[in-house]
Amino acid sequence: MSARVRVPATSSNLGAGFDCIGIAIDRWLTASATLGGTDSGITIHRGGQLAALTLPPEEDLLAVGFRAACAAAGVPHVGVAIDATSEIPVGRGLGSSAAAIVAGASLANAALGLGLSRKRIVELATEVEGHPDNVAPAVYGGAVLSVRTPTGLRSAALTVSPDLVFLLAVPPFPSDTRAARAALPGVLPHEVAVLAASRAAALVQGLRTGDRELLAAALNDDVLHVPYRRARIPGYDAVVAAAQAAGAYGVTLSGAGSAILAIAPTARADAVGAAVIAAWRGTGVEAELLRCADLAEGATVGAAPRTTHHAPRTIHQT
Amino acid sequence: MSARVRVPATSSNLGAGFDCIGIAIDRWLTASATLGGTDSGITIHRGGQLAALTLPPEEDLLAVGFRAACAAAGVPHVGVAIDATSEIPVGRGLGSSAAAIVAGASLANAALGLGLSRKRIVELATEVEGHPDNVAPAVYGGAVLSVRTPTGLRSAALTVSPDLVFLLAVPPFPSDTRAARAALPGVLPHEVAVLAASRAAALVQGLRTGDRELLAAALNDDVLHVPYRRARIPGYDAVVAAAQAAGAYGVTLSGAGSAILAIAPTARADAVGAAVIAAWRGTGVEAELLRCADLAEGATVGAAPRTTHHAPRTIHQT
Repeated sequence: MSARVRVPATSSNLGAGFDCIGIAIDRWLTASATLGGTDSGITIHRGGQLAALTLPPEEDLLAVGFRAACAAAGVPHVGVAIDATSEIPVGRGLGSSAAAIVAGASLANAALGLGLSRKRIVELATEVEGHPDNVAPAVYGGAVLSVRTPTGLRSAALTVSPDLVFLLAVPPFPSDTRAARAALPGVLPHEVAVLAASRAAALVQGLRTGDRELLAAALNDDVLHVPYRRARIPGYDAVVAAAQAAGAYGVTLSGAGSAILAIAPTARADAVGAAVIAAWRGTGVEAELLRCADLAEGATVGAAPRTTHHAPRTIHQT
Repeated sequence: MSARVRVPATSSNLGAGFDCIGIAIDRWLTASATLGGTDSGITIHRGGQLAALTLPPEEDLLAVGFRAACAAAGVPHVGVAIDATSEIPVGRGLGSSAAAIVAGASLANAALGLGLSRKRIVELATEVEGHPDNVAPAVYGGAVLSVRTPTGLRSAALTVSPDLVFLLAVPPFPSDTRAARAALPGVLPHEVAVLAASRAAALVQGLRTGDRELLAAALNDDVLHVPYRRARIPGYDAVVAAAQAAGAYGVTLSGAGSAILAIAPTARADAVGAAVIAAWRGTGVEAELLRCADLAEGATVGAAPRTTHHAPRTIHQT
C-alpha cells in the first residue's frame, strides 16, 4: 500500500521539435506515497526544489497526476500521503511540471495496482500538461518523439549520436511558461510552416547522425516559437553567441526557458559549457551548468535511477 | 566533347516532407550531349516520354539546366546538340522536371569539364526548380532530406527500413503542378504548423524504423499540402482507401500528383499494388504500377544506372 518513484528532468523542443521532441536529463524528482485513511484527502510533504511551492495539496501536480491515474483506471480516489523531493529547478524549462504529473500518476499506478501501461500514463499526463514533449521522455527516458495520430499519441525513441553532449545552462530566475505560450502568434505564413517542418525533420536526422549543419538549422533557426520567446530571457542572445563561438552545433531555449540548451560535440563540450556560464556571468547572472553526455532513463518505480547510454532503445509500451 | 547522363525519376513530399524530402525511383531519363558549332545554339532531340513536348529548345529544361551549369561555372554558352529520351511520365509528380534540369546541368558539367560538385548541381537545379525535394534525390539517389540553412542548402541521406516497399500508381492524366502550388493557403494556424512539424519528424523516424503508426501519421495526415490538392486528382480518395484496406502503412500524393504513392511492408506490397490499380480501374482509370523495393541511385555520368539497396548511404558532396 505504498510506492516510490523517481522521474527525470526533461528538456523539450530542442528548437525545431516544438511540442513533440524531448530528452531526459539526469536530475530527479523522487516521491513516495502511503495510502491511508478512509477519506480521499491528499497530503503532500515537499522538499528540495519543491519546498518553496505554496500550492494547496489538491492543486499540486503530484496530486493532479495521482487523481488522473485513478480516473483513467476507473478507481475512486483514496486517501494518500505523498512525500516528494526534487532536484529539478521549477519554472526553468526543465520539465518540473511533467515530472510531478508523471510521478503522481506512477505512484497511484504502483500503490493501487492500477495496471496502467506506460503509454497510458504518457497519454493521461499529456492531457494534464497539454503537450507530450516533456511527459514522454520523463516516462520513457532517452530522446523521444511524440506525434498525435488519429488513433492516439505515438511515442518513438530517437537515436542520438554518441558524440553529442547536451549542455543546459540554468539561470536563477524562472520563465513564465503560460506567458511564453501566449507570446506565440495565431497564424504563420505557409512558407514558414514549410520551413519549420523541414527543420523538425533535420532535428531527428541530426540527432542520429551528429550532423553539425542539420543540428544548427534545427536548434539555431527555429521559426515556430524561439523568435517569439527569446526576448523574454535576459542574456539569451549573448549566451547563444558565446556557445556558438565556442563550437556548439546548436543553441536554443530549453522548453520555454529560462534554461538554455546547447548541443556540442564531445571535444567542444567543456569549452561550450564554460562559455555559456561566462556569457551569462557577463550579464550579471550566475547560471548552473548541467552536462549530459548520456541521457537519463525514464521514470522508475521502486528502484534507483540509472543513466542510460545513447544506444537506440526500444520503447516497450506495456 | 560529348557526355552521357542518366537521371532517375523521383517522388517528393511523401506526405509530411513537403518540399524537403524525396526518393529516387528506378525510372530514367537518359541524355547525351555533343558540343559543336561556333554559335551558342542548343538543339534537342526528344524521345520516349519527352517526344510529345513541343517547347522550343531554349525553353526545354535540359537546356535551362545546361545553361545554368555554364553560368554557375562562369563559362559562356556553347553550341550543343542534346539527344534525350525518358521513361519518366511528364506531369505525374515523378520529378520529370527535376530530372531534365539535373540532366542538362550534368551534361554541361561533364562535356565542358566544369568541375561542379554534386552539391553545386543540386543548388543550381534547385534555383531553377524552386524547391530541392526532387532535385536532391535525382542527384544523390536514395531518400534525401534537404534543408535550407543560413549557409546554404544541406542535403542528408535518409535511412530507409529494408522492410518498406514504395508503390507508385501512375494514372494516364497529368496534374498541373503550378495550379497545385497555387491551391496552397497563404497562412496556417500556428497549431497546424506545429502538427506539420511533428509529422515531418515522424516521417524521418518512420522511414528508418518502418514504424507503421509514424508512417501513417506522416503520409495519411499531412496538413501542409495534401488537403488542398487531393480534390484535384480524380479517384484519389478511393485509391487511398483501397491501399489502406490492403495494408499500406501510408498513402499520399507523389509530389503534387497525379501519381499516388503508397508505402507498404514487403508482405503486403503485392496486395497494396493490386488494390490501388483495381481502385483506380473502378473509377475508369487505367493506372500503371511502379514497385520499388530498392530506391534508385542518383544521376550517373557516362555509366549505366544501377539500383541501390536501402542501406545507409553517405552523401559525398564532391
